[in-house]
Amino acid sequence: MGEIVFVGLGLHDDLGINLRGLEEIRKANYVFIELYTSLLPGFSFKRFEGLCAKKLRMVSRKMLEEENGNAIIEAAEKGKVVFLVPGDPLIATTHVALRIEAEKRGVKTRIVHGTSILSAAIGLSGLHNYKFGKSVTIPFPENPSETPYNVISQNRRLGLHTLCLLDINAQEKRYMKISEALHILLKNEEKLKKQIVTSETLAVGIARAGSSNPTVKADRIKELARYDFGDPPHMLVFPGELHFMEAEALIVLAGAPEDVRRHVV
Amino acid sequence: MGEIVFVGLGLHDDLGINLRGLEEIRKANYVFIELYTSLLPGFSFKRFEGLCAKKLRMVSRKMLEEENGNAIIEAAEKGKVVFLVPGDPLIATTHVALRIEAEKRGVKTRIVHGTSILSAAIGLSGLHNYKFGKSVTIPFPENPSETPYNVISQNRRLGLHTLCLLDINAQEKRYMKISEALHILLKNEEKLKKQIVTSETLAVGIARAGSSNPTVKADRIKELARYDFGDPPHMLVFPGELHFMEAEALIVLAGAPEDVRRHVV
Repeated sequence: MGEIVFVGLGLHDDLGINLRGLEEIRKANYVFIELYTSLLPGFSFKRFEGLCAKKLRMVSRKMLEEENGNAIIEAAEKGKVVFLVPGDPLIATTHVALRIEAEKRGVKTRIVHGTSILSAAIGLSGLHNYKFGKSVTIPFPENPSETPYNVISQNRRLGLHTLCLLDINAQEKRYMKISEALHILLKNEEKLKKQIVTSETLAVGIARAGSSNPTVKADRIKELARYDFGDPPHMLVFPGELHFMEAEALIVLAGAPEDVRRHVV
Repeated sequence: MGEIVFVGLGLHDDLGINLRGLEEIRKANYVFIELYTSLLPGFSFKRFEGLCAKKLRMVSRKMLEEENGNAIIEAAEKGKVVFLVPGDPLIATTHVALRIEAEKRGVKTRIVHGTSILSAAIGLSGLHNYKFGKSVTIPFPENPSETPYNVISQNRRLGLHTLCLLDINAQEKRYMKISEALHILLKNEEKLKKQIVTSETLAVGIARAGSSNPTVKADRIKELARYDFGDPPHMLVFPGELHFMEAEALIVLAGAPEDVRRHVV
């Protein structure tokens, strides 16, 4: 009986994997990879396969979600499996389900954590990590939801920041942009009228976290909505109350207007 | 004029750094490192220096917090500086302050993100990341605070999970254990009497996240308080309402008693 080691690929490209992950790949009998839960824009399957000197088997959403990762578990019954996943591997709930299923079938599992978009976005924003409330994903308009608006609202009431991931559809190569996300939230505002996301609201847009050329820009939504953030992935942070050091960080590191200091309490 | 590249060392030991971080070290004129904001129990300064083939300059808390990292900024005025930091480097607010100071003095800064304890703990717990509220650090008893208790209470009221980091004092090599943290919270309970942290409360203890032998155990506090979690670092998660998949994860992956299912809503 083998094992499954979930290995995080980290962010952006082939260089996001850490040394412990590479060591696990070297010792593996089977290496699976999925690239649909997050976008790694600079990642090359071929180049990474060369770097690892191992054959990589691509895992589809169908294999994981409809077939419960059966192919991976069966391989682990014969030998050591590494399963490569963007970011930090157990952040996607679908992989937690695979891990539970494997353990129930007697297959041991381990994790080699990777860099996650969650901590990267917090770090890039310059805001303090212990002041973030619940995070949320803004879904595409075909799956309309008031949840993101309500999460921002609830966090704001508590003085907390909100991290918003933006929806992706890897199969169709659709990655929500900041302007789209803002448009969706402004539509919610029109309906819910709680003065939570208006054209005057301060937000921070982050593009290509983890790459060598991320864009981080803090401004009022009316300005952010027409700002060119460049290629995806994009995400958004809605600040709550600011510590004076956080206001300073937004001004110096994210080009926020000086009057963000009015959010300091 | 050079630059400062903040590079994350990730978790636990020398193997937590990613390939992008190593590439930055190779190109650096000066490499600084701090090892006081988090504990990397398996990290060897000497071995890592060998791996990098560069001289590493150790940075003390005093250099960073009293002298504003002046030595690092001055080096960056002459050449390319890499500053190595445990975890994801801009999660510690002290490094955000250094980044602001550097940019104000005309020194460009970049980040190579690393694996953070924040996402690792969420992944190890098996709980869903978008159901975590605000996180908090439990300070040593000589700095008593009701904040952690109140944060757990506020999150619980919203049905959310709470991630608790435990205090460290690197200089004195003191690392708070789960049993100590629980004792502190039970003392708060005696005083505040909100029935938030009692001997019957469900919690998840996590030790040595990011290592190859982490311990993850979910149980009632009366059981966890006497459970042997082994070496530090330790942390705690207080679950809020559970999705049935989260209850399943706690039972299968963290040995929780079957009746955690009563938290499922």
